[in-house]
Amino acid sequence: MNTNFGKVTLLSAGPGELDLLTLRAVKALAAADVVLLDDLANPEIVTLAPQARVIRVGKRGGCRSTPQAFIERLMRRYAQKGLHVVRVKGGDALLFGRAGEEIASLREAGIPVAIVNGISSGFAAAASLGISLTHRRHCHGVTFVTAHTEDHGEPDWAALAATRTTLAIYMGMRRIGSDALLRSLPTDTPAAVVQWAGSVDERRLLTRLDRLAADADEAGLGSPAVILVGDAIGESEPTLWARDMASREEAVHARAA
Amino acid sequence: MNTNFGKVTLLSAGPGELDLLTLRAVKALAAADVVLLDDLANPEIVTLAPQARVIRVGKRGGCRSTPQAFIERLMRRYAQKGLHVVRVKGGDALLFGRAGEEIASLREAGIPVAIVNGISSGFAAAASLGISLTHRRHCHGVTFVTAHTEDHGEPDWAALAATRTTLAIYMGMRRIGSDALLRSLPTDTPAAVVQWAGSVDERRLLTRLDRLAADADEAGLGSPAVILVGDAIGESEPTLWARDMASREEAVHARAA
Repeated sequence: MNTNFGKVTLLSAGPGELDLLTLRAVKALAAADVVLLDDLANPEIVTLAPQARVIRVGKRGGCRSTPQAFIERLMRRYAQKGLHVVRVKGGDALLFGRAGEEIASLREAGIPVAIVNGISSGFAAAASLGISLTHRRHCHGVTFVTAHTEDHGEPDWAALAATRTTLAIYMGMRRIGSDALLRSLPTDTPAAVVQWAGSVDERRLLTRLDRLAADADEAGLGSPAVILVGDAIGESEPTLWARDMASREEAVHARAA
Repeated sequence: MNTNFGKVTLLSAGPGELDLLTLRAVKALAAADVVLLDDLANPEIVTLAPQARVIRVGKRGGCRSTPQAFIERLMRRYAQKGLHVVRVKGGDALLFGRAGEEIASLREAGIPVAIVNGISSGFAAAASLGISLTHRRHCHGVTFVTAHTEDHGEPDWAALAATRTTLAIYMGMRRIGSDALLRSLPTDTPAAVVQWAGSVDERRLLTRLDRLAADADEAGLGSPAVILVGDAIGESEPTLWARDMASREEAVHARAA
């Protein structure tokens, strides 16, 4: 390892609200020379690194984007100049979001990498709904899965359903009505969508699996969102169900008027 | 809801090191009247709540324990006196650990509940190993599962293996050599054990599935630990593999001498 190199910190920005950052993340930001900012992270996070040069490297599925290879080159280039590069990623850096490739690229170049964990949006969504992801009356665990796969295929929904774990589906809004998932679980399985979970713009919907696609469409919910499916979701606070149903009915009413 | 009631905050203490707490958690601790402390949380966390009365309510599987019903009564009793009770749980409060039952009990009593997320030990373990939990070359997701089930049965290992997600197994050290899991995945599947992940006492082992039980036993690793299984684990830093192998060989050597 070249001792003149700086280093790269893969920093988890959490779901959005800045007080959901860890103390370690705040400290790393205050020590950054360069901040590479993901567009799923709250842009206000840069106020915690006023000394740093900030480069926006958004890369949202399907939108105008900074190619992954270019981001990796940027990280290497600045670190090789001896700088401390903080690569800010939404949620937890180690859950989806290409951290694996970035770590491999930096390792190959001999650049030290530190990782600072954070709160992934699936956890923030569960907190918002007032539920455990793994209520032991209902399941033995939770599966975090992305519907946005490298080969543009779909996850094996039947296999996922067979685990009887709660499913936390990321980047799934385009496949929200997946027939394969619908066929694999009871149609009345509780389900929720939480958009911008853990941020000030959070919006949520509680429903059941067979109404998930129609209800999310009707409520105008889109990416970025986490979809939660499983009996544990049925433990959400009763008043939330009532309120979400009410706001949906208001929306329908307003449209019909 | 009785407006004279206090409230309960279910607070995620993260994996151990105090700088892995969120800013929101630190603020809640500073405002606590009573802290109920889980024995999986770092006991030093009480230094962040010097004003609070601290009650230890450890409840480790198989050890001397505070019954769950008693913990729930304590929370209700203090909250009904108008106090702010902070229930500190290791990792993230919404992943295992009975949050579901505690929320239901508080809701039934009309007591407001707030939830503060944190870092679960599976994420800290991945950070320690320098890997993404979901490297997209290897998998579409990660499943967090507990081997410590309410009915004393085992999870459906064959179904979990069929998802081809990374497995993060909690409370699994007594079943580490599960035949059913071994039969369900290739024997050379990369596997790791991280004990006290994300704390100063952290210890880790990198190996393969068919050697997992013997190697963990040899290294003297016990609870609390996270077991990680899956091809994504094979992306751990090569020097870690070398170092862990070396320390294992030293241990064998020392024992033989």
